[in-house]
Amino acid sequence: MTGELHEECGVFGVWNVDNAANLAYYGLHALQHRGQEAAGIVCVDSDGTFTRTKGEGLVTEVFNQKNLSILNGRNSIAHVRYATAGGGGLDNVQPFLFHHHEGNFALCHNGNLVNSTALKRYLENRGTLFQSTSDSELLAHLIKVSHHRGDHRNFNEKYPMLATISSALNMLEGAFAFLVLTADAMYCMRDKYGLRPLSLGKLNDGWVVCSETCAMDTIGAEFVRDIEPGEVIVINNDGIYSSRYSGFHHHYMCAMEYVYFARPDSDIEDINVHAYRKQSGRILYHEAPVEADIVVGVPDSSLSAAMGYSEESGIPYEMGLIKNKYIGRTFIQPTQELREQGVRMKLSAVRTIVKGKRVIVIDDSIVRGTTSRRIVNLLREAGATEVHMRIASPPYAHPCYYGVDTATYEELISSRLSVEELRQKIGADSLHFLSIEGLYKSGNRCELCTACFSGNYPTSLYDNK
Amino acid sequence: MTGELHEECGVFGVWNVDNAANLAYYGLHALQHRGQEAAGIVCVDSDGTFTRTKGEGLVTEVFNQKNLSILNGRNSIAHVRYATAGGGGLDNVQPFLFHHHEGNFALCHNGNLVNSTALKRYLENRGTLFQSTSDSELLAHLIKVSHHRGDHRNFNEKYPMLATISSALNMLEGAFAFLVLTADAMYCMRDKYGLRPLSLGKLNDGWVVCSETCAMDTIGAEFVRDIEPGEVIVINNDGIYSSRYSGFHHHYMCAMEYVYFARPDSDIEDINVHAYRKQSGRILYHEAPVEADIVVGVPDSSLSAAMGYSEESGIPYEMGLIKNKYIGRTFIQPTQELREQGVRMKLSAVRTIVKGKRVIVIDDSIVRGTTSRRIVNLLREAGATEVHMRIASPPYAHPCYYGVDTATYEELISSRLSVEELRQKIGADSLHFLSIEGLYKSGNRCELCTACFSGNYPTSLYDNK
Amino acid sequence: MTGELHEECGVFGVWNVDNAANLAYYGLHALQHRGQEAAGIVCVDSDGTFTRTKGEGLVTEVFNQKNLSILNGRNSIAHVRYATAGGGGLDNVQPFLFHHHEGNFALCHNGNLVNSTALKRYLENRGTLFQSTSDSELLAHLIKVSHHRGDHRNFNEKYPMLATISSALNMLEGAFAFLVLTADAMYCMRDKYGLRPLSLGKLNDGWVVCSETCAMDTIGAEFVRDIEPGEVIVINNDGIYSSRYSGFHHHYMCAMEYVYFARPDSDIEDINVHAYRKQSGRILYHEAPVEADIVVGVPDSSLSAAMGYSEESGIPYEMGLIKNKYIGRTFIQPTQELREQGVRMKLSAVRTIVKGKRVIVIDDSIVRGTTSRRIVNLLREAGATEVHMRIASPPYAHPCYYGVDTATYEELISSRLSVEELRQKIGADSLHFLSIEGLYKSGNRCELCTACFSGNYPTSLYDNK
Amino acid sequence: MTGELHEECGVFGVWNVDNAANLAYYGLHALQHRGQEAAGIVCVDSDGTFTRTKGEGLVTEVFNQKNLSILNGRNSIAHVRYATAGGGGLDNVQPFLFHHHEGNFALCHNGNLVNSTALKRYLENRGTLFQSTSDSELLAHLIKVSHHRGDHRNFNEKYPMLATISSALNMLEGAFAFLVLTADAMYCMRDKYGLRPLSLGKLNDGWVVCSETCAMDTIGAEFVRDIEPGEVIVINNDGIYSSRYSGFHHHYMCAMEYVYFARPDSDIEDINVHAYRKQSGRILYHEAPVEADIVVGVPDSSLSAAMGYSEESGIPYEMGLIKNKYIGRTFIQPTQELREQGVRMKLSAVRTIVKGKRVIVIDDSIVRGTTSRRIVNLLREAGATEVHMRIASPPYAHPCYYGVDTATYEELISSRLSVEELRQKIGADSLHFLSIEGLYKSGNRCELCTACFSGNYPTSLYDNK
Repeated sequence: MTGELHEECGVFGVWNVDNAANLAYYGLHALQHRGQEAAGIVCVDSDGTFTRTKGEGLVTEVFNQKNLSILNGRNSIAHVRYATAGGGGLDNVQPFLFHHHEGNFALCHNGNLVNSTALKRYLENRGTLFQSTSDSELLAHLIKVSHHRGDHRNFNEKYPMLATISSALNMLEGAFAFLVLTADAMYCMRDKYGLRPLSLGKLNDGWVVCSETCAMDTIGAEFVRDIEPGEVIVINNDGIYSSRYSGFHHHYMCAMEYVYFARPDSDIEDINVHAYRKQSGRILYHEAPVEADIVVGVPDSSLSAAMGYSEESGIPYEMGLIKNKYIGRTFIQPTQELREQGVRMKLSAVRTIVKGKRVIVIDDSIVRGTTSRRIVNLLREAGATEVHMRIASPPYAHPCYYGVDTATYEELISSRLSVEELRQKIGADSLHFLSIEGLYKSGNRCELCTACFSGNYPTSLYDNK
Repeated sequence: MTGELHEECGVFGVWNVDNAANLAYYGLHALQHRGQEAAGIVCVDSDGTFTRTKGEGLVTEVFNQKNLSILNGRNSIAHVRYATAGGGGLDNVQPFLFHHHEGNFALCHNGNLVNSTALKRYLENRGTLFQSTSDSELLAHLIKVSHHRGDHRNFNEKYPMLATISSALNMLEGAFAFLVLTADAMYCMRDKYGLRPLSLGKLNDGWVVCSETCAMDTIGAEFVRDIEPGEVIVINNDGIYSSRYSGFHHHYMCAMEYVYFARPDSDIEDINVHAYRKQSGRILYHEAPVEADIVVGVPDSSLSAAMGYSEESGIPYEMGLIKNKYIGRTFIQPTQELREQGVRMKLSAVRTIVKGKRVIVIDDSIVRGTTSRRIVNLLREAGATEVHMRIASPPYAHPCYYGVDTATYEELISSRLSVEELRQKIGADSLHFLSIEGLYKSGNRCELCTACFSGNYPTSLYDNK
Repeated sequence: MTGELHEECGVFGVWNVDNAANLAYYGLHALQHRGQEAAGIVCVDSDGTFTRTKGEGLVTEVFNQKNLSILNGRNSIAHVRYATAGGGGLDNVQPFLFHHHEGNFALCHNGNLVNSTALKRYLENRGTLFQSTSDSELLAHLIKVSHHRGDHRNFNEKYPMLATISSALNMLEGAFAFLVLTADAMYCMRDKYGLRPLSLGKLNDGWVVCSETCAMDTIGAEFVRDIEPGEVIVINNDGIYSSRYSGFHHHYMCAMEYVYFARPDSDIEDINVHAYRKQSGRILYHEAPVEADIVVGVPDSSLSAAMGYSEESGIPYEMGLIKNKYIGRTFIQPTQELREQGVRMKLSAVRTIVKGKRVIVIDDSIVRGTTSRRIVNLLREAGATEVHMRIASPPYAHPCYYGVDTATYEELISSRLSVEELRQKIGADSLHFLSIEGLYKSGNRCELCTACFSGNYPTSLYDNK
Repeated sequence: MTGELHEECGVFGVWNVDNAANLAYYGLHALQHRGQEAAGIVCVDSDGTFTRTKGEGLVTEVFNQKNLSILNGRNSIAHVRYATAGGGGLDNVQPFLFHHHEGNFALCHNGNLVNSTALKRYLENRGTLFQSTSDSELLAHLIKVSHHRGDHRNFNEKYPMLATISSALNMLEGAFAFLVLTADAMYCMRDKYGLRPLSLGKLNDGWVVCSETCAMDTIGAEFVRDIEPGEVIVINNDGIYSSRYSGFHHHYMCAMEYVYFARPDSDIEDINVHAYRKQSGRILYHEAPVEADIVVGVPDSSLSAAMGYSEESGIPYEMGLIKNKYIGRTFIQPTQELREQGVRMKLSAVRTIVKGKRVIVIDDSIVRGTTSRRIVNLLREAGATEVHMRIASPPYAHPCYYGVDTATYEELISSRLSVEELRQKIGADSLHFLSIEGLYKSGNRCELCTACFSGNYPTSLYDNK
C-alpha cells in the first residue's frame, strides 16, 4: 500500500559529540523515510548560542555545506517530517526554537496529541500566541506556564527544567517522543503508553537519541537501550539522569511501525523489523496457504514478508513488481491524461517473470484499496493467470490519532467492505489478511497498539471521535 | 556616505484591492532601498485564511510566480528589512503571523523601540515565549496580554482589536510604524513622536498604506494623507476609522529620511525629498561657498543636493563620480588583495571630467569617514587639482536608537574629531557641513528629529545610553 | 561492488507521440540508473524547429515544468549520462544539436568508440572544430563529411540521411547505440558487434526506442523487438524502414549489463535481467556450495543472485545488509574524519540478523576490492562467525573500452591477485567467483562480450592498449 | 527610450594577471549594461587547460564563488550579451570554446556580420556543422579553413595563428570586436570600419582589453590606447605585437554608443561619453530653444544631455522622472491588467516637482514612440501644463545591421511619420530632434556611423536589405 499512509516524523539528537551538525545530517538522512517534506537541525554551542537551519524538502535539498557550517556546538536536535494536511508552511518545520531570558530552548516532536484543542484553548485564554499550527508547540508553552504556576517547587538544580517539563507532560494526552534542547541539557521523553519509539545510544563520550536505531548505526554509535514509556531522560555533561513523569505505563508500540513504517534494519523495542516482517510472512502462509508458482512482494516494505511466505511455502520468490525510485517534491507527477495513456511511475510488473504464472502477491496492508486494485491489474496485464493477494496485517479499519496521517472512516475501505467484497473490488482470485493474533506472534509481543485494526484505542480520544 | 548607514525597514499594506499580493510585490519593489536583506508578504482572504511567503534576499530573489500565486485575498501587508547585527535568520523576517482561536493576525514594523528590554522581561515573567529576537514581536504579545488584562472593556464591536492595540501601544516607547492585519481589518499606527513615516492612499475602492509615497505611485494609487503621530487608523470594508492612542504628539520626523534614506520621488509629510535635498544644496552654497570649476555629487543620494549647489553657485554640475549598480547578496565582494590591486566596485572617478579641475564634491553625510577619504583620493588620482567637500547635513555625532543601524559613538568620526581635524584626515582642501538650522530651512519645517546631529533625543532612552 | 563501476549512458527516443517531452522525462527517469550526472531532451516540432533542455544533475534536478514546457513537438530524443573522468562540463551533455542549412539534427549516444583518436585527427585535418570533448560528436561530423565526399550517391529520397549515416557508421569502431533526430525522421542504430542494447517499442501510432525495456514499460509502450547489431532503423511518419550498414554482425552483448548495469525488470535480447541474475545465483551455488546459516545479498544489484543461491541451497535469505538511498550530487559526503568515526552512508549490516551466524554474502562483482573488504568487516563487526563471499561473475581483470568507466589494469584487483590472495586481502573465510561458462549458462546464450573477465575483446583496440 | 534598443554585447580579456577570473567577473560587471541576458568567462592556465563557466542571467546570477574558483590561469576572455530574437539558449552564450589537436581556443565577439548567410553556406558546403546559431562562431571555422587552405604560408612562429586569423577576418564583412584566446596568446581585433569599440589597457605586467574603458577603471588598470580599425593585436608573454589585416580603415564609430549604449564614465576613441552627451544637450538647446520652467531628463541615459540643456538655457534641472531599478530575468513583469490599473514599474513622474510647470523633457532617442507617448502622459497626469520634448539625437529611421537589436522599418516610427506627425502622436506641445550635424559637433568628430539616422551604411549590406 506504498504511499497511502504516512508516518509524520522522525527525531534525532546528539549530546557532546564532535561534528554534531554533520552527524545530525547523516542521522536525518537515515530517518528520511519517516518524513520527506521538511527537515531541520538546531545546534547549541558552549556559550549557549543556538543556530538553526530548516526548510521544506528532502534532507539533501534542505541542507548544503554552507548552511550546515553555520551550526556550531557539540549538541544538537533534528527533525524530519511529513507535511500533514492542515499544516504545511515553513513555520511548522521543526525543531522549534524559543527565546526566553531564563534560557533559550529548542524542541521537536514525533507523534500526535489527542487533547491539543483543549490545551490550545487553555493557553490562548491566558494570552498565549502560537506561531505555528502544530501541536508540538504546545509543550513549550506548557513548560513556561508550569513554571509560572510554581510547578518548579521541586526544583532540581542539576536539571533545572525537569520539574516543569514533567508537570507539562502530565497535561499531554496522546502519542509522543519529544526532545528538548537547552544550553545545559537535552531532555528526551516518551508518552506513557509507549506508542512512539525512541532509542538511546552512545558515541564515544557523547550520546545519541533517535526514533529508529538505523540512525545510530549510520553514524557508528552503539545502541544502549530504549527510552521507557513515561520516562524523562536528562543528558548533560555529567551523564544521564532518568526520571519518571508518570507511574502508569505500557508498551503499546504502534504495530504499523513493524508492519510498514520503520526501516528493516532498525530494532524497535529489541525486535528487528525485517525479522518481524519475515516472521509475519511465515505466519501468514500458515494462516492462508494457496497453491501457486511464484511469490511476489510489493516493494519495498513488503519484501521481507514475501520472503518469509516464500521460504515457509517453498514457492520461489520472484521480483515480479518493480518500484521506481523517484522521490522528492521536484518530481513532476504524470497528468491524468498521461496516466490514462499508461504512464506508470510508481510500480511496474515484469512481464517476463509473471507471464503464465499463478502469482501470490504479498503486501503489508490495504488502506484505500486503490493501490491493490492497480497491482492486481498490472499483474494480470503482464500475463499472470491467477493473482492471490496476502496482506501481512489485519484489515485497516479505524483511523489513527497518534501521528499517522490516515484517512477518515469513509476512506478506509476495510471499514466499509467485508474481505470478500474487497476481494471482488480489487479483482484478486483470493484475498487473506494476517490475524490480529498473528501481529502479536510475529514479534512475540504481548502489548501493541492495534487501534487501526481493532478499534481499541489505548488513550481517551477527546474530540477526535 | 553611501552604504554606511542603513534604514531598517519599509512597510506596505493594501485593503480591498484586486491582485493584493501582486500589488504588494510591486510596492515592496519600490521600497527596496529601505531594506535589501529580507522580504515578506502576508495575505488574508475572505474566509480568514492567512497565507505567507517570506525569505532572505532582494524582493526579486524572494518571490517568484509560484510562491506569489499561493497568496490569496484582497488584503495584504508586506515588509522589507535590512538585517541588523543581532538579528538575522528567517525567524526575524516579517510580517510575523500569529495563531489564536479568537482570530489569527499578522504584523509588521518599521522603527525601533527603546524600552524593549523592559517589555520583554515583563512578558517573559508572565510565561511568554518569543520565536524571534525582533522587537517587533512585542506588540503582538502586548495586545493579547492587554486583552486578558481586560483592556478591551472599551470594546468597539466594529473594530474589535482597537482597544487592546491602543492599550498596548501606550506601553511602547520609541519609533514605529506598525501594520496589523486581521481577517476583518487592517490597523495602521505611528509613534506619537512622528519619528517614522507612514502614508495613506486610495486605490479604486480600496486602500494603501506605505512607508513612502513612491510605493503608491508605482501601483497607481492616489495619495490621501499621512497617518498622524499617535494615530491608529482602522481600515475595514466600511471604510476608514481614525482614533488616537495618545494625546501627546509631535512631528519629529527623522531628518535622515530627507537627507539620505527616502527615494527622491517620495513626499514625506508634504515635502518632496528631491526638492528638500536640492534646497539643502542651495543653502549649503550660501553657508559655504568656494571658487571651483565643477560640482560633483556622490551618487545616488547626493545628486539632488549637488544640483542645488551648482544652480545656486553657477558652477557647472558634472558626472565626475560613477556608482556601480551591483546589489544583492549574490555579488561576490572583492577580496582585500583585489582591493589593494585597485579593484573599485562601488565608486569610480571619471578622469576625463575631473582632470585638471578644481572640484566641489557634495555628499549627504559623513559617518565613519572612510568613504570620504576614498572619494578625495579617487578624485585626486583622477587629476583633480583641488577637492572641496561640502556635506548636505551637520556632523553625524550621536547614535540613532530609532531604527537606523548606526555605529557606536566610537565609530562616529564626528564624535571624535573637529571639522578641521576631519578635513585633514580625509585630505580635502576644504570641508564644510550644513548647519542644523539649514536642516530645518531646507524643508521649511519647525520640527525634526535631529538626534544624530544634535544629541537631542525626543524620547527617553532607557538602557540604550 | 556497488558504485565502483559506471555505465556511461542511456538513450531514449519517441516518434509521433502526444506529450513527447513528458514521455522523454519519464523515460529518462526509468533509465536514471544508467547515468546520474547529466540529462537532456531535444524535441522537434512539425515546423522543423528544435528545442532543447539539458543540464547537470539528476533528471528531477535538470527538468522542471517550465523548461519542459518549452519543448514542442511529437518527436524527441533524450539522454542520461555518467560524467566520465575526462569529460565533464555542460558542453558534453547530450543530446548534441547541430545547425546546418540542409536541416538541423540532434544526436545522442550510448557506448564508446575505440578509434576516436584517429577519427578526430582525420576530421581536424580537414578543418573540423569540436565543441565538446565527447566521442559522440564524431558521428555528426562524419555524416556531413560523408555527404560532401559524395557518399549519398545511393540517395534514398524517403530517408535522405540514410546513405551518409551508413557510410559514417562504417568508419566507427567500438560500441554504440546512436539516435539521430531530424525534422523528418529518427535514425536508430547499434554497433555491428551488438555490444550495447537498444530496443524498439510501439505506443499507439507512434514509436519508442530506448536502452532498456523498463523505460517502455514506464510509459505504457509495447515491446516490439531489439534493434539488431549492424542495423539502422529509420522511423518517419510512414512507419519503419530497416537497413543494414554492415553485413558482419554478432551478439556480443556486454555481460555486465546482465550482471550489474541493467534494471532487473528490463529484458535484454529477450532475457529478463532478474531471471538471469537469479539463475547465476543458482549456478554459483552448484559451482561453489558452502555450509552456512544465512544468505545475504549486497543491495541492490545482487539481491536476485542471492535469492537464486538461497533457493537452490535451501539456506534462508536474510536482509543482513542495508543500502542507504542517498543519490544525487547534492548529498554531502562524509569527510575522512567522519568515516573514521564510523559514519557509514553506503552500507550497514543489521546486527540482529547477522550476529552469531555463518553468512554467505553474494555480490555481483569485485572491481577494486575495497567494497568487499568493507563488507566483510561490517559483517564481522556485526557478529558474523563466518563470512563466505560468492561473486556472481568471474574475476574482473581487464579494462572495458566500450563505455564503462573502469579503472586501469593497476586498479583492477583481480589483474594483480589470485583468488586466494584476494580472499586473504578481503578477509573472507572463503571466496568463489562464477565461471565464464556460468555467465553463458545463466542466460542460456552462446555469444556475450566477456572482455573484462577474459581479455577477449571483440573489436580491434587501436591505441587503447 | 529606455529599453527599446539593445546593444548586443560586451567583451573583456586579460593576459598575464593575478586572479584573472575574478578580474573578468568585475570587468563583466562594469559591462553589464551592454548585455543582461547571459555571461561567460573562459580561462586558460599555463598547461594550456581551458576552463569555462557560462550561463543565462545577470553576471551576479551566473557566477558564484564555486564556479569562479574552477577557472584557473592568468589569461582569460569574457562576454556579456543581450539575447537577440533568433538566438537564445545556452549554446549561444559566449565565449565559445573549440577543441582541436593543434590547440584549443576560445572566442568572443561584439557586433554583427552582414555576410554571415553567405559564409555559413560556404562552410556548410564544406561539411561544417554549427553548434550555435550565432554569427560569432563563423570566425572560428574560417580560421581553421584558412589554415587548411594554406593561408598560414606566412607563418610567424611567435604568433602561430596570426596569418590564418588575418586571412579569415578578410572574409568577414560587418561590425566586430573579436577576442581569441589560445594557450599562448590573446588576439584582439576590430573591424576595418571602426564600428565597434575596443580598448587596450595595462595592469602591472599584464594587459586588459575591453569594449569600454569603464571596465578598466573598475579593476584599477591604466588606459593605453584603442585598438585601431583593421588592426590585430597579439598579446603574449613577450608583450604586444600589432599587425593590420586590412589597409582600408575608417573611424565610423557607432553614434549610438555615445548617444545611448556606453556608460557615461567610459571614454570612446578619446571622447568621454558623459561629456559628449552634455555637449549634445547644449547644442540641442541652441538648435531648439523653448521657454519653460524646468528641464527633466529621462533616466538614466538622458541625464547628461538634460544637464547640458539646463546649463545652457539657465532653466533649472529637476528630477521629475524616476526610473525604478528592477533588473534581471527574475523580476515578475506586471500583467496587462495590472498595467491598466496603473502599475508603473519602469518610470514614474514626481507630482510635487512637475505640477503646474512647463516641462522640457530630454530623451536620448525615439525608436518605437511608445515610451515617448507614455512619458508625455505621465507628465501631464502629474500636472505639467506644457510638455516640450527634445531628443538628443536625430530621428531613428533605419535599421541597424551592426549588432544593435533594432526593429524593422515598420517598427521605426520615424521611418513612417514626420516630426510634426510624431509630435501629435506622442501628444507633446513641441518636439525637436538634434541634427545630424549636431551629432558630429557634440564629439568634435569627423567620422561616425550614422546609418540608423541617415541611412548611409558604411558597409555593403548583402542580403540584409
